[in-house]
Amino acid sequence: MKVLTFGEIMLRLKAPGHERFFQSPMLEATFGGGEANVAISLANYGMDAEFLTVLPKNDIAECCIRELRYFGVDTKKIVRSEGRMGIYYLEGGANQLPSKVVYDRAYSSIALAKPGDIDWDKAFEGVDWFHITGITPAISESAMELSLEAVKEAKKRNITVSCDLNYRKNLWKYGKKASEVMRELAKYVDVAIANEEDVQKSLEITVDVNVESGELDRKKYKALGNKVLESYPNMKCIAITLRESHSADWNGWAACLNDGKDFYVSKKYEIRDIIDRVGGGDSFAGGLIYGLNQYEDKQSALEFAVAASCLKHSVIGDFNRVSVSDVEKLMGGDGTGRVQR
Amino acid sequence: MKVLTFGEIMLRLKAPGHERFFQSPMLEATFGGGEANVAISLANYGMDAEFLTVLPKNDIAECCIRELRYFGVDTKKIVRSEGRMGIYYLEGGANQLPSKVVYDRAYSSIALAKPGDIDWDKAFEGVDWFHITGITPAISESAMELSLEAVKEAKKRNITVSCDLNYRKNLWKYGKKASEVMRELAKYVDVAIANEEDVQKSLEITVDVNVESGELDRKKYKALGNKVLESYPNMKCIAITLRESHSADWNGWAACLNDGKDFYVSKKYEIRDIIDRVGGGDSFAGGLIYGLNQYEDKQSALEFAVAASCLKHSVIGDFNRVSVSDVEKLMGGDGTGRVQR
Amino acid sequence: MKVLTFGEIMLRLKAPGHERFFQSPMLEATFGGGEANVAISLANYGMDAEFLTVLPKNDIAECCIRELRYFGVDTKKIVRSEGRMGIYYLEGGANQLPSKVVYDRAYSSIALAKPGDIDWDKAFEGVDWFHITGITPAISESAMELSLEAVKEAKKRNITVSCDLNYRKNLWKYGKKASEVMRELAKYVDVAIANEEDVQKSLEITVDVNVESGELDRKKYKALGNKVLESYPNMKCIAITLRESHSADWNGWAACLNDGKDFYVSKKYEIRDIIDRVGGGDSFAGGLIYGLNQYEDKQSALEFAVAASCLKHSVIGDFNRVSVSDVEKLMGGDGTGRVQR
Amino acid sequence: MKVLTFGEIMLRLKAPGHERFFQSPMLEATFGGGEANVAISLANYGMDAEFLTVLPKNDIAECCIRELRYFGVDTKKIVRSEGRMGIYYLEGGANQLPSKVVYDRAYSSIALAKPGDIDWDKAFEGVDWFHITGITPAISESAMELSLEAVKEAKKRNITVSCDLNYRKNLWKYGKKASEVMRELAKYVDVAIANEEDVQKSLEITVDVNVESGELDRKKYKALGNKVLESYPNMKCIAITLRESHSADWNGWAACLNDGKDFYVSKKYEIRDIIDRVGGGDSFAGGLIYGLNQYEDKQSALEFAVAASCLKHSVIGDFNRVSVSDVEKLMGGDGTGRVQR
Amino acid sequence: MKVLTFGEIMLRLKAPGHERFFQSPMLEATFGGGEANVAISLANYGMDAEFLTVLPKNDIAECCIRELRYFGVDTKKIVRSEGRMGIYYLEGGANQLPSKVVYDRAYSSIALAKPGDIDWDKAFEGVDWFHITGITPAISESAMELSLEAVKEAKKRNITVSCDLNYRKNLWKYGKKASEVMRELAKYVDVAIANEEDVQKSLEITVDVNVESGELDRKKYKALGNKVLESYPNMKCIAITLRESHSADWNGWAACLNDGKDFYVSKKYEIRDIIDRVGGGDSFAGGLIYGLNQYEDKQSALEFAVAASCLKHSVIGDFNRVSVSDVEKLMGGDGTGRVQR
Amino acid sequence: MKVLTFGEIMLRLKAPGHERFFQSPMLEATFGGGEANVAISLANYGMDAEFLTVLPKNDIAECCIRELRYFGVDTKKIVRSEGRMGIYYLEGGANQLPSKVVYDRAYSSIALAKPGDIDWDKAFEGVDWFHITGITPAISESAMELSLEAVKEAKKRNITVSCDLNYRKNLWKYGKKASEVMRELAKYVDVAIANEEDVQKSLEITVDVNVESGELDRKKYKALGNKVLESYPNMKCIAITLRESHSADWNGWAACLNDGKDFYVSKKYEIRDIIDRVGGGDSFAGGLIYGLNQYEDKQSALEFAVAASCLKHSVIGDFNRVSVSDVEKLMGGDGTGRVQR
Repeated sequence: MKVLTFGEIMLRLKAPGHERFFQSPMLEATFGGGEANVAISLANYGMDAEFLTVLPKNDIAECCIRELRYFGVDTKKIVRSEGRMGIYYLEGGANQLPSKVVYDRAYSSIALAKPGDIDWDKAFEGVDWFHITGITPAISESAMELSLEAVKEAKKRNITVSCDLNYRKNLWKYGKKASEVMRELAKYVDVAIANEEDVQKSLEITVDVNVESGELDRKKYKALGNKVLESYPNMKCIAITLRESHSADWNGWAACLNDGKDFYVSKKYEIRDIIDRVGGGDSFAGGLIYGLNQYEDKQSALEFAVAASCLKHSVIGDFNRVSVSDVEKLMGGDGTGRVQR
Repeated sequence: MKVLTFGEIMLRLKAPGHERFFQSPMLEATFGGGEANVAISLANYGMDAEFLTVLPKNDIAECCIRELRYFGVDTKKIVRSEGRMGIYYLEGGANQLPSKVVYDRAYSSIALAKPGDIDWDKAFEGVDWFHITGITPAISESAMELSLEAVKEAKKRNITVSCDLNYRKNLWKYGKKASEVMRELAKYVDVAIANEEDVQKSLEITVDVNVESGELDRKKYKALGNKVLESYPNMKCIAITLRESHSADWNGWAACLNDGKDFYVSKKYEIRDIIDRVGGGDSFAGGLIYGLNQYEDKQSALEFAVAASCLKHSVIGDFNRVSVSDVEKLMGGDGTGRVQR
Repeated sequence: MKVLTFGEIMLRLKAPGHERFFQSPMLEATFGGGEANVAISLANYGMDAEFLTVLPKNDIAECCIRELRYFGVDTKKIVRSEGRMGIYYLEGGANQLPSKVVYDRAYSSIALAKPGDIDWDKAFEGVDWFHITGITPAISESAMELSLEAVKEAKKRNITVSCDLNYRKNLWKYGKKASEVMRELAKYVDVAIANEEDVQKSLEITVDVNVESGELDRKKYKALGNKVLESYPNMKCIAITLRESHSADWNGWAACLNDGKDFYVSKKYEIRDIIDRVGGGDSFAGGLIYGLNQYEDKQSALEFAVAASCLKHSVIGDFNRVSVSDVEKLMGGDGTGRVQR
Repeated sequence: MKVLTFGEIMLRLKAPGHERFFQSPMLEATFGGGEANVAISLANYGMDAEFLTVLPKNDIAECCIRELRYFGVDTKKIVRSEGRMGIYYLEGGANQLPSKVVYDRAYSSIALAKPGDIDWDKAFEGVDWFHITGITPAISESAMELSLEAVKEAKKRNITVSCDLNYRKNLWKYGKKASEVMRELAKYVDVAIANEEDVQKSLEITVDVNVESGELDRKKYKALGNKVLESYPNMKCIAITLRESHSADWNGWAACLNDGKDFYVSKKYEIRDIIDRVGGGDSFAGGLIYGLNQYEDKQSALEFAVAASCLKHSVIGDFNRVSVSDVEKLMGGDGTGRVQR
Repeated sequence: MKVLTFGEIMLRLKAPGHERFFQSPMLEATFGGGEANVAISLANYGMDAEFLTVLPKNDIAECCIRELRYFGVDTKKIVRSEGRMGIYYLEGGANQLPSKVVYDRAYSSIALAKPGDIDWDKAFEGVDWFHITGITPAISESAMELSLEAVKEAKKRNITVSCDLNYRKNLWKYGKKASEVMRELAKYVDVAIANEEDVQKSLEITVDVNVESGELDRKKYKALGNKVLESYPNMKCIAITLRESHSADWNGWAACLNDGKDFYVSKKYEIRDIIDRVGGGDSFAGGLIYGLNQYEDKQSALEFAVAASCLKHSVIGDFNRVSVSDVEKLMGGDGTGRVQR
Repeated sequence: MKVLTFGEIMLRLKAPGHERFFQSPMLEATFGGGEANVAISLANYGMDAEFLTVLPKNDIAECCIRELRYFGVDTKKIVRSEGRMGIYYLEGGANQLPSKVVYDRAYSSIALAKPGDIDWDKAFEGVDWFHITGITPAISESAMELSLEAVKEAKKRNITVSCDLNYRKNLWKYGKKASEVMRELAKYVDVAIANEEDVQKSLEITVDVNVESGELDRKKYKALGNKVLESYPNMKCIAITLRESHSADWNGWAACLNDGKDFYVSKKYEIRDIIDRVGGGDSFAGGLIYGLNQYEDKQSALEFAVAASCLKHSVIGDFNRVSVSDVEKLMGGDGTGRVQR
């Protein structure tokens, strides 16, 4: 099983600890981006993972590629081109003070990329599963067109396509609404991943759940999943993550999965001392792709994904630096956090 | 509306993170002090804020002045004189282990300052509101006399005077009890800010509330406020902050305001992962001065002050690095801490 | 009262903050080890504490000895010999992700030490109390023999012997089960310290309590203690620590003490934002030795030990950097964490 | 004397110490840019300095403005607009390994700015001296047009114009050669600053000196200056800096000044342990503007500029954090570096 | 051309900056070892490089493997086994104070490895060049036997063998003199690399040059090389590095190459501000292997090796993080260190 | 041989690396002071060293005492009293930019101490050698009186007295000139240590050597020493250090010793990459006391002192963290700085 993920990887510049920007003349400098995060999760679980993106020809991008290689992600299909490396600045929140992201991703190499820039025969060589998100079509018109080309080319080759709808309200600035694009793209998707807001903003499908409220009514999500699957007959299943945001460092975390036949609801985890929320959704997607390929039953796949992403909240950085055994320990019910020695 | 705050600004030397002193050969070196913290809050909210103090003629004080300027606080009235820069050492607590402050502020320039050292005509030029605290009169006899001179000179010019009573048991070492001085100073105050202990120790006015206990009976505070306002007929209102200290990192936080006519009680916030408590009260004072000048109704002013100071607990350092929009988001009910992107 | 503790002190190499290994090219480098941690607790409480170990002749071991001296622990009986300095690597956990210890302590100087290498006449000169743990006999066959020699030599000299059973499942690799050794060693012990698992794995004495579960039934511990004291007639008392592990950063913490006559149960503390759990048990042992020597009544001794070790969870590093007054403040009921200034 | 400098200020992201990019997941994050560096030098010398630029509306730009304010530079004329904040990445060199700059300044707010975006009446209000460099016209066609507009508008108002020719071979990508633009811009310049390569690449005026070689023949520079002054009759003087680059950390540093009448040559300094070379030229420009306004004789002005910029090589960051007394001490001949205490 | 290097890679724990051990409770934690350093140099130059070693099965070794992968070194032949990861502690020197290495590499996995533990058919699959050093045979008797097995197996397969003699006086503790082993091993070597002391201690071949003295007489090295080549008829060439150690941070650096026919002497570089000397010799070996494969003439190969290793002295860490273009720039004569922008 | 040193130990707050104050919100926080530095040197050489001072009763002073204990200095005679802990702020220089010290030592506990505060019988118990400097009499009138009392009490007990004249122009603010005091104090001194400026300013004895100039005429120092010894008949010898200050990081370093009979001149060291100059003189004093007690001949004593203090320039912090073997290696002629492994 070779999985290819495609999207943007950015330089992540975070104010240290709980500092606000420039309290110290220092930024923690790592890399991250939804689809790369998924590839790294998969590589960490021992899967054959590749990442496809477009990056500029400079030292910063070179180091980014090396970092992917560190995790065992195959980087040889990455295209080097014009443009710059996208950046996002991050300030960590706490309690009632939210984390804050400032994007500086305009004019990135992938934002400038367009249909024709990627040789899909080469890109999809040996690939069984293709993962994309709703972020890439949001960054520029040409990247949107490239994203649509990608899923169409994947389906041509009978590759399974997964997509994390991932609605970002501060992107989508080139003149299209998210739903105009994502409703088209969703036609080519086998496995959809989303939260309730993503479904609403990307597919314009809703049930009346208030995202901002505390306790969530999980049962409604069955209806929501059904509605999506009915609208997209090619879609085989949809997983919906359920985040209860009590504060910047205390969240409830669970998910459900709807495959048209059955509705699975995961355990719910209370995460009271969040270390880093960013990449939480991506770690769910990574866990789900692993789970659907590894376990017979969908309940286990879902539980793996939720446990994996629960653990991500305790890891600093975009990448989910946990192993299958870490995740299976938690799936198995041991969340006591006793020192392992 | 130009606000002048007057008092001591110190070098703040904090053991890094949760280390106790000298676990590492490093101290986080910033600046802070009650009245400067208020000025910075106001400047952050876009108000015209000035800070008046006395500082020595050396590089450390020079950097301190630059730091104030960084936030847009006007520093041109600061007096340079003999003496040293006051210091406080800080160790961060957690759980049942309290944070610890070691003062090294004796013989500071402001402690050596005395009536006559400040040209009040110049100092109060263009000033509409003057803010002082109970700390300055606590540091030395001459600073106490200077404080009394300050409020009298302010009232002469019809400037509104606010005062945070701020009782500090480890100061007041020059031979006077806090109440001997503060009962005199309070006569010149329009807006008083305090917690229950401050009222008791500074004004010797009490109702029987046990400060050390957990849950607080907020209703008693109405009586307490009334008692203060009756004693000080010139005082227009008193705001009392209510802190429930469950542990070094979990506090409940609320406040009430009594203007002789009405009694306002704020929302209460649970802050379960306190990043830095120091400066919390100052951020309340800053929020209140802003609120009373910005909102028609006192309830909004109080809610702004409480929300602002709630957020301070998530910011490292003495200064409350938040904006009006950060505060109004929380006032508006969104304390979920969802990532802003 | 001079206390000698004997065992291994290691270099502790911890990934910074909540990072996993090598996220940064940096390791926090301090020292620690069960018995040294006890000696440092005692020195911090003003007792006359000595530490005995075997260390190699290099700069790293030299710095380790200096660090012990920093705390006032007497190091002059330390033996310098062949072998290396043991190391443990540590990764800090959070929430459902456990802290992780990787041992690199094989072939350490103390693991290579054997009966005859220590001159017990010199080692026990002036000593009233001797403390050992179940870790030293677990690291190698010769260290086990040396440990047995140590307790026998101590008893010969009528020195009180305390032992923290401290079962470590990843040690005991030289061919003996823990219980084969510890049941012998326990015969020479006056004061035993353990948790429920230690008792089971080291002494093969059990009552049916599920260690992994949340809420603990404290009453059963009376029976467990009785059973141990009956099996070891020379043992004067056994203290059992009770940890409720809700997550890596939220534990309940309490203990009980059984002296054959009475059964004492301590207050229970909720520690919701654990800074460092490692050394928590050792700080209990240190507190207990101090308490049993300082207070008339065993309840106070136990409360001191539990309060001391509760505070340890808020201190980074193996060593419990708190004073008697810090502990007595908590024992006295003040766990509110209000800033001390 | 109010001086306005105009150009781009960037986020400067430097690998820590002598590390190459991403050896640590950390970047030292400060700000810098030729014209801002000059403004900060002037403010440090007590002059009335203003900085004009175009910046985006985000937190990073906000912090940059605060940083300028920290130094006392007036920032109120800064225009906030579309686009991004320019960035340069920096790796420190040593010995034979050069420092390396990677630019990420395309699409910055000032690169997108164009004639008409700045209200020159407001910008030049109260301004006596205007400073610009050859970098701004190099970043984009519209910025070039804006630069030309700027100097023309300045001359219209009889403001003295200084220009650091500052040739950057990796900019000038929009289709014009540097000399096509700079030969036009130079017509409006009163005081030119350059090194030999700048003169050649920007003005296409040469004498046969090999820039890459070690020892420089200073006398030739007289001829070079004369040639420039003859070509630009409005130009009152030209200062040329002479850098002998023995290695990344050992440079010789001197300068000469030609005012058409006299030729001044400065002392030469050996700088053998360079801390940070970036901003060295800007600190010369800042020193020269100060010197020409402060001293009667041009030799002193030149010596001040060279001594100031010599000291800059010992200061980390773009900004020259030295005072007039620091510079005058060196001008006066004391370069012994004895501890000041 | 696929190159396999074989030896030990260790955890390198360095006191930060110029601190002596434990001035801060921090150690810079990276990886390094002679043969791995060579593999990384080759990968950095774009060659197909593999590294073979024996490592334990723990997280620290796992991170080490990831780090090699970061640089593009193929790690799939690495054997996981018993034992520990070797460590070396490092303290940086300056001026007259030398850098200091404390080894903790006894009982490492490779020290415990023995003939038969490595499947040489698999190890040498596709390999054209094999590199080994005199360090591996020095660490233990079994590692010595394994080293001899390695070179014999390589020669059987007609693989070119290079060996850096690398004499380490603090190893060789298992009862053999270096020369007893190395004179045997040298019989299988095609390309030898050494300094004068290595030749003397490993091969017992000398000419009368005093290593500790300042200026070196390079001509004598011709005789020394000839003498070695005569003793080892299979050896095709020997390169000898010439270090003039003026102080811990000022060295002269050059080398010569003797192929039996011609004698080549390189340029000499003065390195006056050494950043990190460790790995300097390895970077020479890496440069030489690249050079001998890339350039027609041996003079260029030698110059590449010397320039590459000259640059290493300006890079922190064991690994030579420079590119072919960096090296060729210096080879081409540009060592001026001018900022590249 | 037990040596007691007496004086002030301060908190040393240094801007990190080559930063100027507050470039980062961080200060390197260690301890230091002339006489404590000497005690630590002696303890590092294995001598029995005690330090006597007066310190306040707070946590900062407590940590300072622990730090002294870390090095094996006996701290049990330290007096705890009123006042504060003295501080000095330090900025590291480079090239032509000097290091800068800002004192904040007024009102320190030792500055407030006065004759009668120290029980000299207890202080001098078992002491053979007493070391004092010209700094303590410079900080306050009462400290001056205490210093005179100290040397008189020492002489009463036939204890050898050494004194480092150590003139500090920014102290001596209480109304006496240095020479008024030091000429009295010198009468009780057996071994004087000084540089040329100290002799001039403290004893008003001169020969015409220009301290600020580069190359020094060492021969004149013989005359200078003779002149001092003639004026103080009880003085047995005087050592004069000779620093040639080429820049902040390049000094020549040597010394001479005059015992009235012979004149000894040491080797001269070039130190071209100074890491930390502060404490250089103290390390000379420490080396000299060790040398005079350890070696038969005065030339060796002098060479030890100069080599020891030469090495200090490569160690960060006030304390000279070198061993006898480090120093003797350099004395023996090996200053090549070759890696020790």
